[in-house]
Amino acid sequence: MAGIKTDNKELTELINSIKPLDCDAVEKAKFRQSKLAKPPGSLGLLEDISVRLAGISGNVKNRAEKCRVLVFCADNGIIEEGVSSAPRSVTAAQAVNMTKHLTGMSSMAAYFGNEIVVTDVGIADEYDCPQVIDQKLMRGTRNFLKEDAMDRKTCEEAILIGARTAAAAKKDGCDAIGIGEMGIGNTSTSSAVLSVLTGLSVEAVTGRGGGLTDSAFAHKKQVLEEAIRLRGADPSDPADVVTKLGGLDIAAMCGAFLGAAANRLPVVIDGFISVVAALCAARICPEAANYMFPSHASFEPGYRKAVEELGLKPWLFLGMRLGEGSGCPIAFQVMKAACAAMNDMALFGEESVIDDGYLDEIRKGDSFSI
Amino acid sequence: MAGIKTDNKELTELINSIKPLDCDAVEKAKFRQSKLAKPPGSLGLLEDISVRLAGISGNVKNRAEKCRVLVFCADNGIIEEGVSSAPRSVTAAQAVNMTKHLTGMSSMAAYFGNEIVVTDVGIADEYDCPQVIDQKLMRGTRNFLKEDAMDRKTCEEAILIGARTAAAAKKDGCDAIGIGEMGIGNTSTSSAVLSVLTGLSVEAVTGRGGGLTDSAFAHKKQVLEEAIRLRGADPSDPADVVTKLGGLDIAAMCGAFLGAAANRLPVVIDGFISVVAALCAARICPEAANYMFPSHASFEPGYRKAVEELGLKPWLFLGMRLGEGSGCPIAFQVMKAACAAMNDMALFGEESVIDDGYLDEIRKGDSFSI
Repeated sequence: MAGIKTDNKELTELINSIKPLDCDAVEKAKFRQSKLAKPPGSLGLLEDISVRLAGISGNVKNRAEKCRVLVFCADNGIIEEGVSSAPRSVTAAQAVNMTKHLTGMSSMAAYFGNEIVVTDVGIADEYDCPQVIDQKLMRGTRNFLKEDAMDRKTCEEAILIGARTAAAAKKDGCDAIGIGEMGIGNTSTSSAVLSVLTGLSVEAVTGRGGGLTDSAFAHKKQVLEEAIRLRGADPSDPADVVTKLGGLDIAAMCGAFLGAAANRLPVVIDGFISVVAALCAARICPEAANYMFPSHASFEPGYRKAVEELGLKPWLFLGMRLGEGSGCPIAFQVMKAACAAMNDMALFGEESVIDDGYLDEIRKGDSFSI
Repeated sequence: MAGIKTDNKELTELINSIKPLDCDAVEKAKFRQSKLAKPPGSLGLLEDISVRLAGISGNVKNRAEKCRVLVFCADNGIIEEGVSSAPRSVTAAQAVNMTKHLTGMSSMAAYFGNEIVVTDVGIADEYDCPQVIDQKLMRGTRNFLKEDAMDRKTCEEAILIGARTAAAAKKDGCDAIGIGEMGIGNTSTSSAVLSVLTGLSVEAVTGRGGGLTDSAFAHKKQVLEEAIRLRGADPSDPADVVTKLGGLDIAAMCGAFLGAAANRLPVVIDGFISVVAALCAARICPEAANYMFPSHASFEPGYRKAVEELGLKPWLFLGMRLGEGSGCPIAFQVMKAACAAMNDMALFGEESVIDDGYLDEIRKGDSFSI
């Protein structure tokens, strides 16, 4: 159900370096929350966010000033089977456009002053853009209906690239990161990986998405079912599942989630592909889930299954299904709001002119009405 | 079902000055959205926001740079009946704290650079704070279990105060406003008003909230049911409902929603009290609803009923129940994100290196899968 079977020393060290939250800081943060001049619990998830940030950093007060979206780009051989409406060339084109802040996610990130790091772990087509970091491992994966998408060693290397990219963000002083992707065909790889990891049917975790007509959608599911049967991936070994059915983007993103946890960096999950990568990371190291924060609820039906498995509730319901990491810039704003309330609100009995005596009665219950 | 029966000239002019959205700008904004380099519809509600902002301003591109939260504060005589856990003194104390950025909403607003305007339309207790704008009409409303909460004339004056406060925001160059409140007992007034306006039972629209024990909660509902029966407010006349069962905060907030629409200013709804005031405004002038934007889903059960009546879907599910306008600072950020995508994304065939030929197939459907 968890862990990773590997001889790779760097990967083993990565996983071993992931530690639990700082319980002492969590308790101190909860205490401060209880002293803020408001009805207990009235800031809802903003309170939980502030407490978890404390457990991550070890400090009661935190900030989410310097935020970075890490985008991993790769192509997927499975599109040979006609599971996608868009041509492969879109992957390279959008990777380049992201560096110019011309895409959905990157336009929002630029507006909010978030950094973007775009990494090529497997784009198939040629492009000329030095701003895209070249960590290409393959020119797209192989067609997993016919053979394993990649070698185990390549999968592990992709995980490490992701982890190193997260570590670099920490080194650069980032307060939080978000994990996005670009890769035509990656809802197919994500559905296949999620189906094997959870034992849920392809039907339950695969989106009509759209563009796909009824017959094209039926075909996509048929291809995934057949491929899952043929590849026989081991559900207890997420790296095996990604090796056989995944994308290089998913592998690198999984590594970025592990790297974030290893570096005690809060990490935001974007949509469907991102949450599947997050689930892979949590299956490899359950402790990693404590460092993850949700953003928006994706349209894809598999999203909800995966986010539930992680024990998280999405913050934003905006009907978005763009990918790229487009939920991250807004989620960073929610995180900033949580920090502002925690850091700057009055405490009962201090700056506040309100006595907290009246809360004694309220505290006996678990909620409040004014 | 709609309208207002009044001899007040300023109020009549206010309502007559509310005009429909600019259809031409809406169509132009939809066309631009269709040309942005992304699958059609993939930015979900962010697309709808950008289109509606165009209909409000008349311009395809918009911004939400200068945002202001308008907070209306008032006390409620109904708390004599023991429907609230908190003492009356909290209203004045928190009104003052808001001007110092020490409350939940105001700490977030300060962080994001939003302005705050706190207006006293009926605080009962004394306080010393010139930053709170004194528009006090009464020292709290009367106990509506025993008599009408206020006079009709006072209600209309409160509506006008709200409208003038919104007009001032427009004059000051605000791009968007949000409507919040502070007033112990105002979930009771809001439940009573909503019950009469919608014909829904007190049971269906009244929150346990909390703090209130089982018996106190039952008592709150009993008081509201009895008061609604005794006051006999006219559901077709929202100002009558607010006069008899409302708060001065609700009246002023209703006026602020009307004033926003009259001044073509996008206006964000906060939680339960705010959405009830928004519904009053929409019942007085249905066109006003086109200028309203939701923020977070409040915990109070009545919230969902009211927001559905307005045809809106909340963006944020954060389990918040603080009031004050605390959903507005985050909602402004969502609005900013929508503007950034609309204004700055590449268009197919222009800056983008992607040809939009592949979208022809997709456009036949109404959604998309990569």
